[in-house]
Amino acid sequence: MNTSIRLLVTTALTTLAAATSAAPVTPATLEASFDAGISSADQMAWLKDFTSAPNHVGSAHDKVIADKTLAMFKEWGWDAHIEQFDVLYPTPISTTVEMVSPQRIVLGGQEPAIPEDSTSGNTKDALPPYVAFQGDGDVTAPLVYVNYGLPADYEALARRGVDVKGKIAIARYGAGWRGLKPKLAQEHGAIGCIIYSDPQQDGYGDGDVYPKGGARPAFGVQRGSVADMTTYPGDPTTPGVGSVPGMTGRLTREAATTILKIPTLPMSYGDATKLLAALAGPSAPDSFKGGLPIAYHVGGDDSVKVHLAVKSDWSLKPLYDVVAMLKGAKHPDEWVVRGNHHDGWVFGAADPLSGNVAMLSEAKALGQLVKSGWRPDRTIVYLSWDGEEPMLLGSTEYVETHAAELQAKAVVYINTDGNERGFYRAGGSHEYQHLANAVAADVTDPQSGGSIAARARAKLLADAYDGHGRGDEAAAAAAEGGGDLPIGALGSGSDYSSFLQHLGLPTLDIAFGGEGQSGGVYHSIYDSYDHFTRFDDPGLKYGAAMSKTVGRLVLRIADADTPPVRFGDFADTVAQYAKEVHKLADDRRAKDARLSRLTTAFTAASDPLDKVGPPEPVAPTPFIELAPLDNGIAKLSASAKAYDAAYTTHGANLAPATRARLNATLRDIDQLLLDPKGLPSRPWYKNLVYAPGKFTGYGAKTLPGVREAIEERRFADAAEYAGRTGTVLANYAARLDAATAIVTGR
Amino acid sequence: MNTSIRLLVTTALTTLAAATSAAPVTPATLEASFDAGISSADQMAWLKDFTSAPNHVGSAHDKVIADKTLAMFKEWGWDAHIEQFDVLYPTPISTTVEMVSPQRIVLGGQEPAIPEDSTSGNTKDALPPYVAFQGDGDVTAPLVYVNYGLPADYEALARRGVDVKGKIAIARYGAGWRGLKPKLAQEHGAIGCIIYSDPQQDGYGDGDVYPKGGARPAFGVQRGSVADMTTYPGDPTTPGVGSVPGMTGRLTREAATTILKIPTLPMSYGDATKLLAALAGPSAPDSFKGGLPIAYHVGGDDSVKVHLAVKSDWSLKPLYDVVAMLKGAKHPDEWVVRGNHHDGWVFGAADPLSGNVAMLSEAKALGQLVKSGWRPDRTIVYLSWDGEEPMLLGSTEYVETHAAELQAKAVVYINTDGNERGFYRAGGSHEYQHLANAVAADVTDPQSGGSIAARARAKLLADAYDGHGRGDEAAAAAAEGGGDLPIGALGSGSDYSSFLQHLGLPTLDIAFGGEGQSGGVYHSIYDSYDHFTRFDDPGLKYGAAMSKTVGRLVLRIADADTPPVRFGDFADTVAQYAKEVHKLADDRRAKDARLSRLTTAFTAASDPLDKVGPPEPVAPTPFIELAPLDNGIAKLSASAKAYDAAYTTHGANLAPATRARLNATLRDIDQLLLDPKGLPSRPWYKNLVYAPGKFTGYGAKTLPGVREAIEERRFADAAEYAGRTGTVLANYAARLDAATAIVTGR
Repeated sequence: MNTSIRLLVTTALTTLAAATSAAPVTPATLEASFDAGISSADQMAWLKDFTSAPNHVGSAHDKVIADKTLAMFKEWGWDAHIEQFDVLYPTPISTTVEMVSPQRIVLGGQEPAIPEDSTSGNTKDALPPYVAFQGDGDVTAPLVYVNYGLPADYEALARRGVDVKGKIAIARYGAGWRGLKPKLAQEHGAIGCIIYSDPQQDGYGDGDVYPKGGARPAFGVQRGSVADMTTYPGDPTTPGVGSVPGMTGRLTREAATTILKIPTLPMSYGDATKLLAALAGPSAPDSFKGGLPIAYHVGGDDSVKVHLAVKSDWSLKPLYDVVAMLKGAKHPDEWVVRGNHHDGWVFGAADPLSGNVAMLSEAKALGQLVKSGWRPDRTIVYLSWDGEEPMLLGSTEYVETHAAELQAKAVVYINTDGNERGFYRAGGSHEYQHLANAVAADVTDPQSGGSIAARARAKLLADAYDGHGRGDEAAAAAAEGGGDLPIGALGSGSDYSSFLQHLGLPTLDIAFGGEGQSGGVYHSIYDSYDHFTRFDDPGLKYGAAMSKTVGRLVLRIADADTPPVRFGDFADTVAQYAKEVHKLADDRRAKDARLSRLTTAFTAASDPLDKVGPPEPVAPTPFIELAPLDNGIAKLSASAKAYDAAYTTHGANLAPATRARLNATLRDIDQLLLDPKGLPSRPWYKNLVYAPGKFTGYGAKTLPGVREAIEERRFADAAEYAGRTGTVLANYAARLDAATAIVTGR
Repeated sequence: MNTSIRLLVTTALTTLAAATSAAPVTPATLEASFDAGISSADQMAWLKDFTSAPNHVGSAHDKVIADKTLAMFKEWGWDAHIEQFDVLYPTPISTTVEMVSPQRIVLGGQEPAIPEDSTSGNTKDALPPYVAFQGDGDVTAPLVYVNYGLPADYEALARRGVDVKGKIAIARYGAGWRGLKPKLAQEHGAIGCIIYSDPQQDGYGDGDVYPKGGARPAFGVQRGSVADMTTYPGDPTTPGVGSVPGMTGRLTREAATTILKIPTLPMSYGDATKLLAALAGPSAPDSFKGGLPIAYHVGGDDSVKVHLAVKSDWSLKPLYDVVAMLKGAKHPDEWVVRGNHHDGWVFGAADPLSGNVAMLSEAKALGQLVKSGWRPDRTIVYLSWDGEEPMLLGSTEYVETHAAELQAKAVVYINTDGNERGFYRAGGSHEYQHLANAVAADVTDPQSGGSIAARARAKLLADAYDGHGRGDEAAAAAAEGGGDLPIGALGSGSDYSSFLQHLGLPTLDIAFGGEGQSGGVYHSIYDSYDHFTRFDDPGLKYGAAMSKTVGRLVLRIADADTPPVRFGDFADTVAQYAKEVHKLADDRRAKDARLSRLTTAFTAASDPLDKVGPPEPVAPTPFIELAPLDNGIAKLSASAKAYDAAYTTHGANLAPATRARLNATLRDIDQLLLDPKGLPSRPWYKNLVYAPGKFTGYGAKTLPGVREAIEERRFADAAEYAGRTGTVLANYAARLDAATAIVTGR
């Protein structure tokens, strides 16, 4: 910590102590006192310091940040320590990508410094653009443009007579998670893969490019992890167990199924243009067309050949998770857990440090409350994760190490990650939907002066009217009716994953966004203090709003007699998911039937000069036995409504012993959503309501055992998981019935 | 006619004479004989000759084409003459467009010659890129990018605080008709207008650019007319009457409301990029973003200033319509009328000569049938129009001159225009929907070997399955059920307009398309024989298919005892339009109500750094008295079904006098769709079922008096025209009842 930061801490603390001594500590005054401890200036100072050097896993500055964080927590009165893990984390020794035909053009390499970005020249300790957990190799082959590189794109290519066998695939970022692109390329026989940022979504299509504006410049590259997250996150060589220093029994690199086998590199659109402009072969279908000023072709012939080579250092690297606790006065073994990671790809200003400094603000304000005499009822655990970027390493290894304790103690996990100017967004376990709305009603939006809830509602309504909303008429109707705004389901891409999907803990993920331009420098060297304070959250006003929002969640859950949940919201949401699954099956069945009738139409309609063949024949979607799922949902709905009604009537007046039994009954209820068998082909994922989609990645798939089985035509799995999902929901309902009996005393 | 053409004629004729002497002339053998007279080689030769020099109105080669066409008709045995009109047709004396700030860049001028296009250097007699009927002027002002320049775009600009008053608007082609763009710019106070071709829809976004491929090159410009077609087409100074040579009573140029008052020029995207890349001001909303590799801004500040000047020769120019007849043996005063124009913007290969040479093939084949002894029952009238491009001049002046005779004699008008490789498309009066399907079932598709109807059906089905069809599930369902494919409604943009919308004559418009790339050179100097035979219809095989299709329509109508119509198809279609109108009113009412409730959402949701204000308040859409329309449609449906059923039962066995009464009763029935008052604010358009949209132009608006009034919030007009439209439909139904009584003898 530097001097200026220490000064800020001392000043704020004094102010708070004066404020809190004036009145008794009610929840409202507690939150007001908490707010008084939140400072955008603090966050600016910490952000400037933490972004001053590259802070990826294994970097010197990553350790510096962990040590400084530890010192801050301690100074603020927390019981804190650093927990180290040793993880497989490959770093590039050399990266090579060049066009070798029709002419030789060397591409790739580090992104250039620009004068308007003061840290962009400070890349001595930075890694060059690469993707973690790709497979090293050295290949030269023809290039094929595979659009987003998702299954539908390979179908489109097959219908045009193009495949990637023995070739190098070039995919654009977007539509699905980064890691799916080389994984699917590999499965289709590609021997190498390039992933580039197309300017349509991520460049001038998004606005003026950096440094004039905040959008991605032609030479900006998106780094990232391509470990097969959808199979399991964490250290690829230690699935299911913690990578504690000195551990034995690691998988070999070859046996670790989440490590890619083919060399893969990311690329700027400045470089990609040179390759794509020279590609011949069939014309790209409309869905393949991006924002480059060229006629996109898919290649697959010898028009363009590329040399791609990556060589990595595959040694173990240390992770430094900072763990900090404020012990609960009444329920020390009930934990409210909250985390944000501190490692970035380079300087990591928006991702993750904007969220990290907001978390530190909360920690400082909580420490001040404690110093002023307050103690939480439940234990509060703050975690500054390391190694999120390479594959949620810090959180996953921590969760795998402490699984039993977390399942026995944790009430909720609250996550944040990068933050920026814009609109309040919450995702997570739907029994917390109302709380996520309630806290937002009490936090002032820095720009509009209304509440962040009111602004989020206004945005939903304005977008729905203008016809460019997220197309969610149900959400717009809820917004207009004044009801709670729906919160999203969580897939993956941040540290909540193992809590929610491996341990079955209730989870919330909070962010502001939609008005900043951090997407334009995502995972590049330009995700810097300069960019962040010019384009993403000037003055870190939304950093402070984030602290106030998450602080309220933490305080209200930590101090509640019984955690403030509404199971009816969960039941209604799951019922909506089941409706979607029914519709999916019905739509698929109708479409399959249509295809089976269209025997000659595709050939007759195809342009002989630009041939597109018929789709592959499919096994028609049968009627699927979804009754067990429907029965589980019916039980859940009835039980949830009964519990909520009972708690509304009796909840305020429970005898202490009764409440203790109730809390014990409900604390681990979400763990009933786990099935020990896990999801088909990915047993690490055990939650049958929420999962990252196998073919979306970050995007969630709800009721995944059933939904994905229908999508992927695993009809036996669909029937099996309709049963399994129905069972976990019925078990959940039975637990609610037990809770209702406790509340009503019957 | 050159020697090679004469030789082809003689050879084909001999072949046909031999063929037709072998069997009696049934409809099937007649059509087979007709087909034998159709020759792609003929069409190639004529196309090459006609495209050898610029052929716009007033050019020397335009007159040469008319004279050659006259000679061919005469040689083929037709009674033919040239009918001349003298029309106002401005041609540019000078065109100037240049950026004057932030730097001076001279733009515009003639498109460059390219070696791969053999006529592209032959521009001595060509006009430079311009738009006809713009208003001359010389202006220098800041530039504003107005997207497509349609009403929604001006609303989007207003919400961003930008207007065009005193400025020059730059609009991109697309979404609405060309002429709307400068008209609306002028109405919003702009003092000049530029219209450019954005590469997203019309450039590399569409494929490889010319000459590598067929798409529009960076230096290609779309000429066109910007006369206010939606008020009335034809000579702006002679609305409603024919511009016969020596006529008196013309409006002055100033009094002609369809002539624009502000200077306007078209532009290539190569030029437009230079202007748009330098524009500042608010970021363009997503709907404004095109395919240029820039961050689009809307300007409106002083970032870019443009000098725009046009000076024209406003003298009268001669038009040469070629009129040719084959007199009917039985019903000489019942005319089957068919036309295609022969004037282009420069060389006009695709537009219009590809359609024109197909028509000439039909004329030659019909002439051969006559020489072999056949005579049509009804008179066949072929028209090779001049002056379509500047504003449907040749057809409109002809129709206005001969209105009474056409209304007294014409049974149908069949139009074609440019043609290219692809899929059969028909539009027109829906009682001819079944005939348009029936002839297509009997014409072989040049590529697939099946019928053109089967291929059109296959395309509709394949596109619907692939999810990139025209989104018309009703059409796809009809296609899959094996029923007739729906034909489209006609708006404007070709010579059918005055027949359908001014005279109330049944009309069909026929084309092939969707696989050629004539759009890439539309109205540019590269719409050439070279482009056409490389990219649009190599070998003119679809030219021959067009001749065979239209020839069947002509023969079947000309020789039918009673023209082969199905009024049920018309009634069903109009009933569908009425449903759409109801839905439009309901959707508008709901949306207006939503807006009235959203008092603060837009302001709260707006990004303070990129402000977007609320929409203008609107007068809410009330419940509109649509009952008279619904009653008219109910009557029409019942009467149409009754007539079709009666004709199916009795039609084959009518006594000659009865049939004569029936035919006289039905021949002018579509004229009952006219209202003498015409449409609100545009009395020239009298058809209350079909019109070009005031804000779509080429695109049709059906039940326009009601539909557009709802769209434009003229609610009194909506109620009035629901009554008027109900009345014309009820009159139509009553006429059908009279026909049914004739058929059934009751």
